[in-house]
Amino acid sequence: MPNRYPLLGKIDNPEDLKKLKEEDLVPVCSELRDFIIDSVSCNPGHFGASLGVVELTVALHYVFNTPYDRLVWDVGHQAYAHKILTGRKSVFHTNRKYKGISGFPNRKESPFDSFGVGHSSTSISAALGMAIAAQKKGEQRQVIAVIGDGSLTGGMAFEGLNNAGANNANILVILNDNNMAIDPNVGALKEYLLDITTSKTYNKFKTDVWNALGKFENLGPKARRLVQKLEGSVKSALLHRSNLFESLNLRYFGPVDGHDVEYLVKILNDLKDIPGPKLLHCITTKGKGYKPAEENQTAFHAPGLFDRETGKQIVVKHEKPLPPKYQDVFGETLLELAIMNPKIYGITPAMPSGCSMNILMDKLPERAFDVGIAEQHAVTFAAGMAAEGDIPFCNIYSSFSQRAYDQIIHDVALQNLPVVMCLDRAGIVGEDGATHHGVFDMAFLRPIPNITIVSPLNEVELRNMMFTAQLDNQGPWVIRYPRGRGELTDWKKPFRALAKGKGQLVREGRDLAILCIGPIGNEAIKAANELSLIDIEVAIYDMRFLKPLDEELLEEVRLRFQKIITLEDGALAGGFGSAVLEYFCSKANMPQVVRLGIPDKFIEHGSPTELYRECGIDKEGIKATAFKLVNENIRVK
Amino acid sequence: MPNRYPLLGKIDNPEDLKKLKEEDLVPVCSELRDFIIDSVSCNPGHFGASLGVVELTVALHYVFNTPYDRLVWDVGHQAYAHKILTGRKSVFHTNRKYKGISGFPNRKESPFDSFGVGHSSTSISAALGMAIAAQKKGEQRQVIAVIGDGSLTGGMAFEGLNNAGANNANILVILNDNNMAIDPNVGALKEYLLDITTSKTYNKFKTDVWNALGKFENLGPKARRLVQKLEGSVKSALLHRSNLFESLNLRYFGPVDGHDVEYLVKILNDLKDIPGPKLLHCITTKGKGYKPAEENQTAFHAPGLFDRETGKQIVVKHEKPLPPKYQDVFGETLLELAIMNPKIYGITPAMPSGCSMNILMDKLPERAFDVGIAEQHAVTFAAGMAAEGDIPFCNIYSSFSQRAYDQIIHDVALQNLPVVMCLDRAGIVGEDGATHHGVFDMAFLRPIPNITIVSPLNEVELRNMMFTAQLDNQGPWVIRYPRGRGELTDWKKPFRALAKGKGQLVREGRDLAILCIGPIGNEAIKAANELSLIDIEVAIYDMRFLKPLDEELLEEVRLRFQKIITLEDGALAGGFGSAVLEYFCSKANMPQVVRLGIPDKFIEHGSPTELYRECGIDKEGIKATAFKLVNENIRVK
Repeated sequence: MPNRYPLLGKIDNPEDLKKLKEEDLVPVCSELRDFIIDSVSCNPGHFGASLGVVELTVALHYVFNTPYDRLVWDVGHQAYAHKILTGRKSVFHTNRKYKGISGFPNRKESPFDSFGVGHSSTSISAALGMAIAAQKKGEQRQVIAVIGDGSLTGGMAFEGLNNAGANNANILVILNDNNMAIDPNVGALKEYLLDITTSKTYNKFKTDVWNALGKFENLGPKARRLVQKLEGSVKSALLHRSNLFESLNLRYFGPVDGHDVEYLVKILNDLKDIPGPKLLHCITTKGKGYKPAEENQTAFHAPGLFDRETGKQIVVKHEKPLPPKYQDVFGETLLELAIMNPKIYGITPAMPSGCSMNILMDKLPERAFDVGIAEQHAVTFAAGMAAEGDIPFCNIYSSFSQRAYDQIIHDVALQNLPVVMCLDRAGIVGEDGATHHGVFDMAFLRPIPNITIVSPLNEVELRNMMFTAQLDNQGPWVIRYPRGRGELTDWKKPFRALAKGKGQLVREGRDLAILCIGPIGNEAIKAANELSLIDIEVAIYDMRFLKPLDEELLEEVRLRFQKIITLEDGALAGGFGSAVLEYFCSKANMPQVVRLGIPDKFIEHGSPTELYRECGIDKEGIKATAFKLVNENIRVK
Repeated sequence: MPNRYPLLGKIDNPEDLKKLKEEDLVPVCSELRDFIIDSVSCNPGHFGASLGVVELTVALHYVFNTPYDRLVWDVGHQAYAHKILTGRKSVFHTNRKYKGISGFPNRKESPFDSFGVGHSSTSISAALGMAIAAQKKGEQRQVIAVIGDGSLTGGMAFEGLNNAGANNANILVILNDNNMAIDPNVGALKEYLLDITTSKTYNKFKTDVWNALGKFENLGPKARRLVQKLEGSVKSALLHRSNLFESLNLRYFGPVDGHDVEYLVKILNDLKDIPGPKLLHCITTKGKGYKPAEENQTAFHAPGLFDRETGKQIVVKHEKPLPPKYQDVFGETLLELAIMNPKIYGITPAMPSGCSMNILMDKLPERAFDVGIAEQHAVTFAAGMAAEGDIPFCNIYSSFSQRAYDQIIHDVALQNLPVVMCLDRAGIVGEDGATHHGVFDMAFLRPIPNITIVSPLNEVELRNMMFTAQLDNQGPWVIRYPRGRGELTDWKKPFRALAKGKGQLVREGRDLAILCIGPIGNEAIKAANELSLIDIEVAIYDMRFLKPLDEELLEEVRLRFQKIITLEDGALAGGFGSAVLEYFCSKANMPQVVRLGIPDKFIEHGSPTELYRECGIDKEGIKATAFKLVNENIRVK
């Protein structure tokens, strides 16, 4: 069998890459692309974004002196080529697996990962901090931030640009413009970038400018000024709209073809010698070089298993039909509710397919808004609509809702506006790891006054919670639910309004009560069923409402049980279990309470099964805790 | 005595204002300005910002049909003229007082306050939500957001612009450009705005454009196109830098003199008829019309009591010297530490004078960074510096740190970077009210792994915590401390390193233990001293560390005391008291614990004394709780 990677095979790190001749860069890009396709087709991960920056990655490591020069990848799901070129080729098959390498750059993993990422729009701020640190130390380090046009819509990126443009630190922002977030990018900025890119006059002048620029460093001061003038005048002539980045005092270069590796090497070499803040606008194609991915960019953002030859996604067949994904239950239910209640709108910060709001968008496009990667704006925009009497359902992944924390407090809860915040990807998300687990939400939302917070045991409950939230319409609701599939195949039941602040007994018991919230309660039910075989009878209470807590039910539990376990798929510090303690401590005869949940550490990546096991909140962990609690008698004076 | 307000006296609401002739608008502005100066000099509040928008406020209410048309004031401390013109003139003397009117727009207070504010950069998002809600309902409502150039540096404003520019909703953004935040505005955007404003060619053409535009609606389609073309070509000729707002697809108008009320009326009338998203750039002077405020804009942002005639701030004389403000202890200590440790830098998002980082800036300007109103960027910028081995002290007001919650988790804590977050204005802040109280910080920070969280009992402790944080240098620290003055006049003691995670017994007792954190502990000490007079002996433990909690000390307390009060100046749900419960519940023989802190509601404005009393956490409240607890015996089976 021929060696599929004759050049890449010899590259373990950027030093090896630098040994290649420039003419080898095109074939090495081709091998790198093959390697990524070979790997990710069998071992699912992010795909299209990395294929889109193969040339850019090779050029960056070829030109710059990494890791001394700092490379910050925004979001980081595009950093597979970077990982492969920086010592992790041989372990790349462990990508996103439990105890394997992370799917995102991670400082613990490699000195080449100069800054950990996962959430969007952080790279410019981090890179500027690094660049200024270098400047203060007198180090001639280059600092490069690579940011997509999607990430650039996040306000934090603008804050970084505003600060970078007012400093003279050496920072190179590479705008990786593929016109996509996970879904197609939206907003005025996108239109503006497209406008630059498609400017017909541009190509005519581009070569002249770049040729002039290339000779820049060899010129005397007089000629330099001439070139600068030329550059400026050509650019202002070219761009029929004015340049946003120049307004912010970043020198703007581009747009250039982000798949022309030799050209990129030339440009980056030029830019290395230009001091101060600057931006290189690269046009790339998400999924570049793999036709199915180029043609269906959203599906190939993170496609799961697929057949390398046909590009068909591989669906594992199951004998019985699978329960739906929670996100689809949300999406379909939102459409149902929107049809019945004209006040309802959907709002998503750049996740229409990720949260299945595209179901509403397809059928009632005028009722849903993709506002771009802009969680802060999404929430306050929703608050603005709610202030006018509408009922916006604003869907944000739990861990990204951390970006909108102040807006939830200040714009929604303080004004008691009926925004329905739907937090998808709550709890452990699995392979995306520490940056993406939605484990803090219950703890950080619970202190906020006026908010109703719920989490469903299953899909029917999710539907009913959404239904109840819009019926209630008295103030903000938060509905948190997990990534992945639910419990029930027969879930599309008639709506039922839930009593606000009321939990339910879902399994009778005798020896012990488990109080749970959210779908992790299903693990408790399974554990209880098995314990029943050895005559340990565990009662299960699904509290439904984290806030307001069902104090009547808690009182019933307190009077009936001496031993209680609380169970949640969130951080133990300040979470659901603490809320239960806060209630019990106000009473005499405090029962013995053991709290199960996410311990006080960042949980890494792995399958949800592995990670719930690690935290002791899978069926086995719950069984073990319950068994021990029933068979101990700690609480003796 | 002559009537100081012959015109204003007759105005109770915008309907009355609209009855005035245009020539009366200049004198009414003058009266309004006098009214504000008269009021705020005796009853402290925000000052310069409101003086700067007197003409704009009059013009807006004169032209627009408020409250049907929606007016959203960004931040809202400039809305005094708005409040006075909209039914609150007669109660304006209660501004910021307990049970009085709020210092910020507030939906509960008036239908003219279409959206509550307090934090910066929210107005565009809220206004866009309202404008789209109106559009969907087919209402011809105008929605206006008034935002300062300082607030525009907040990324959220950019997120709003990006979304607004991609919609055709009728939104008018008024950029109130006074070149200031509380301190002078910073960043590339500020330079850009200054550039537009000072463009020499501009004034020459301005009149032509506006004259043409004024006739716009009376023209036929052909002439309209001509005017549009004229407008475009003049503008691109004028602005020697390109236009950032046009890049984002907002029609840009200006800059105009924001103090020419007649001109503003004309312009706003014109803009009313121009559909879609648009921005009017108004140049104003903060403190306009009151010379001392114009000349010292930072001091007159919120000057406290001052002599109306001389402009001198009135300092109430005290017999004994007062303890310093905590912010000054921070500022002076930071300078000391920075001089001794070259790794230390200061970072503030637009609060150099508010947090006293200006002390460092004055002496070592190269060691401190004002990054603009940009809390998210501030934290990740700090993380970037920390990743390079520096020790940034990033100072953010507690309630504004909610803006950077994700960055604290994702960029700082997850990477365990030694950023020292100093949260000023923690706890109850007083007159600024619900938007500004820093009461959630302990509850939302506690679930984050890797973070050390402390709060000082007094100024000496604050110094030592800052000293210890930079010595430790093992991961992130959060030091939270309040607004206002400390306890000790003799506070500049030699530094002492604190043992990490160790609290201290500060007062011996017998009947009851109070566990406290932060300066609220001083109330407990006072309460204990008084209770001692009636032979109730209360032990006081200052825990110092919210995280890691001193479990050894807690164990000692548990073994010694049956009755325990926890005391904090933060939200009870999930806060310090809950942390104590979480520890105790893991033990047999749980003592009786009563938690004192901020209850589950938004606390309005008033003096800190009044508000702490309302929450039952002043000396009297603590005494009452302690007395009851000692004299009860609830915990009997």
